[in-house]
Amino acid sequence: MGDLERGRAKYDEVYGEGAADRLLAALDGWGSDIGRYGVEFNFGEIYSRPGLDLRQRQIASIAALVTLGGVEPQLTGHIKAGLNVGLSPTEIVETIIHCVQYAGFPRTINAINVAKKVFQERGVT
Amino acid sequence: MGDLERGRAKYDEVYGEGAADRLLAALDGWGSDIGRYGVEFNFGEIYSRPGLDLRQRQIASIAALVTLGGVEPQLTGHIKAGLNVGLSPTEIVETIIHCVQYAGFPRTINAINVAKKVFQERGVT
Amino acid sequence: MGDLERGRAKYDEVYGEGAADRLLAALDGWGSDIGRYGVEFNFGEIYSRPGLDLRQRQIASIAALVTLGGVEPQLTGHIKAGLNVGLSPTEIVETIIHCVQYAGFPRTINAINVAKKVFQERGVT
Amino acid sequence: MGDLERGRAKYDEVYGEGAADRLLAALDGWGSDIGRYGVEFNFGEIYSRPGLDLRQRQIASIAALVTLGGVEPQLTGHIKAGLNVGLSPTEIVETIIHCVQYAGFPRTINAINVAKKVFQERGVT
Amino acid sequence: MGDLERGRAKYDEVYGEGAADRLLAALDGWGSDIGRYGVEFNFGEIYSRPGLDLRQRQIASIAALVTLGGVEPQLTGHIKAGLNVGLSPTEIVETIIHCVQYAGFPRTINAINVAKKVFQERGVT
Amino acid sequence: MGDLERGRAKYDEVYGEGAADRLLAALDGWGSDIGRYGVEFNFGEIYSRPGLDLRQRQIASIAALVTLGGVEPQLTGHIKAGLNVGLSPTEIVETIIHCVQYAGFPRTINAINVAKKVFQERGVT
Repeated sequence: MGDLERGRAKYDEVYGEGAADRLLAALDGWGSDIGRYGVEFNFGEIYSRPGLDLRQRQIASIAALVTLGGVEPQLTGHIKAGLNVGLSPTEIVETIIHCVQYAGFPRTINAINVAKKVFQERGVT
Repeated sequence: MGDLERGRAKYDEVYGEGAADRLLAALDGWGSDIGRYGVEFNFGEIYSRPGLDLRQRQIASIAALVTLGGVEPQLTGHIKAGLNVGLSPTEIVETIIHCVQYAGFPRTINAINVAKKVFQERGVT
Repeated sequence: MGDLERGRAKYDEVYGEGAADRLLAALDGWGSDIGRYGVEFNFGEIYSRPGLDLRQRQIASIAALVTLGGVEPQLTGHIKAGLNVGLSPTEIVETIIHCVQYAGFPRTINAINVAKKVFQERGVT
Repeated sequence: MGDLERGRAKYDEVYGEGAADRLLAALDGWGSDIGRYGVEFNFGEIYSRPGLDLRQRQIASIAALVTLGGVEPQLTGHIKAGLNVGLSPTEIVETIIHCVQYAGFPRTINAINVAKKVFQERGVT
Repeated sequence: MGDLERGRAKYDEVYGEGAADRLLAALDGWGSDIGRYGVEFNFGEIYSRPGLDLRQRQIASIAALVTLGGVEPQLTGHIKAGLNVGLSPTEIVETIIHCVQYAGFPRTINAINVAKKVFQERGVT
Repeated sequence: MGDLERGRAKYDEVYGEGAADRLLAALDGWGSDIGRYGVEFNFGEIYSRPGLDLRQRQIASIAALVTLGGVEPQLTGHIKAGLNVGLSPTEIVETIIHCVQYAGFPRTINAINVAKKVFQERGVT
């Protein structure tokens, strides 16, 4: 099953060089096991599966997080990751707007505001 | 904003010839307005936006519905629509499995069972 | 706090003569305490508060249940209760449609189908 | 379907003179389309339907948002709107308390704290 | 990370001899990977962690599933598992009733009805 | 049903001497009734039931709140209460990690971060 080194490599491919180490450092102590599972299972296993490319996976991740609601830190991370793997800002915004049908306006508008903040920080126009 | 004829055409492009009429017939009476909004707004407006193709939109729809939970009729419909617009069965299953990170195992396993039933009906192997 | 006799009277005012006894009978055995709390707290206390009339309370109940999702038995009950306390079928359907903004189309359409079934059973046109 | 000018007029009727323009300005850029849909569809279409008056609609909106959870900005807005359209502070608080049956104590208490903050800003006692 | 054999053994300890094989058989084909992850990760990893015994873990599982809602098949399984690992019927029912504070009455009452059905099948009184 | 004095005593047993009075003071004015219900019903009734001890109840409370999401103030309180009634920090963290199966990684990681903050304030290592 999910392997830490494979997870770390995939995580860094999605989030940028050294990102897995920064995640694991941020979750150290009581969070170290859940952080390690996140890298091993989510990235060493799920994200490493064939059948969807990383751009498709980021569309799915963003749609799931918009719908879940109340998870702004993770939505922020996955919007950045979407840009990293080559989704255009338009594709990210369209994915969020698409969810209004299922998740309603409040969750969708809150997600758009998260995207606007990420794009501003990244200088995306 | 969303137009009924544009929505009907887009809905049929996603769900197959005559599907919008069947939806509107099924939701007649007390459901006729919400059915019409579904066609006009969701398909005449949201699905008709540029920026994502229909295969990307079905990935987003499936991920949102897996995460929402408790909406098996709609998930069934959107898995069929995914096949219609050219997602492979593998891409659909991978989209569902991808959501286990965000939506947990129970919602994901229930969604896989919905996909298995659709694939069986369609003779997909 | 909530009193069983007051709750029973209010429950019957909302659901019809003898309804509290039928609820408590249906939830007997392992369900008897949660059934009693439902009558005592929800009806003997919350529904018995001044400040909203029963028609307003049924609008709030229906909106909450549409949004919660996956609670069809309770939604069925509260739509019937809405008719009992004097909401028109139109007011009930409008309350459900109103929620599409917040709860999205799948939950709203499923709720409309619940309402259609109740109206059909009651001969409401 | 929903028309921007009708939506703007209804939005301002609910939120106060010039409010739609302020919303659209706040959501400009990447948020401009979802902002426009909010005005056109939610207010130009849903809120403009006959069958429920604005006080009944605000009861439904508040109940839906309490139950949804994690949408404090929208709950703040709809509590203010409730006061604007003539709900008494008591009716708003009773609507929130009513939802404890369906949405549980944490979401309800968080919503009461949002209402307390709005009432304090508005000098409502 | 989670190992299939360790997961199978733990799964059978919780659900009874041969249960993992039955799960994997039920989820075969398109469900085989998510089924395997359920055994490997949930049971080979999470359930195999020290720090909580199986009775404590079943309390947590039941509380999470009551709150999640719309996952009756999993709730049924975890109530049976609760009995298997030595929770008394009373402890299971109390765990469900405890959740009414957080998850509200509809989800709690639906869960009690699931428990009643399991207890009836098992001849628990 | 739930009695205020019994609730106050149970609340203080869980949260510490004088805690119920502090809760009721914090929720005064528009929040006084929901605060009183929280003490009377949740503590005077539910927490006062036999069948589960307080350590088991805190496991259920934490699992429910992790799964509900978006209720950080209540999760903070119940983690503190878990320590108060004798759960070890490890048992609390294991309860949170256990929920990753049902509630997914984002809600679980957010809950771990809440626990880390509580442990830091309490000097727990």
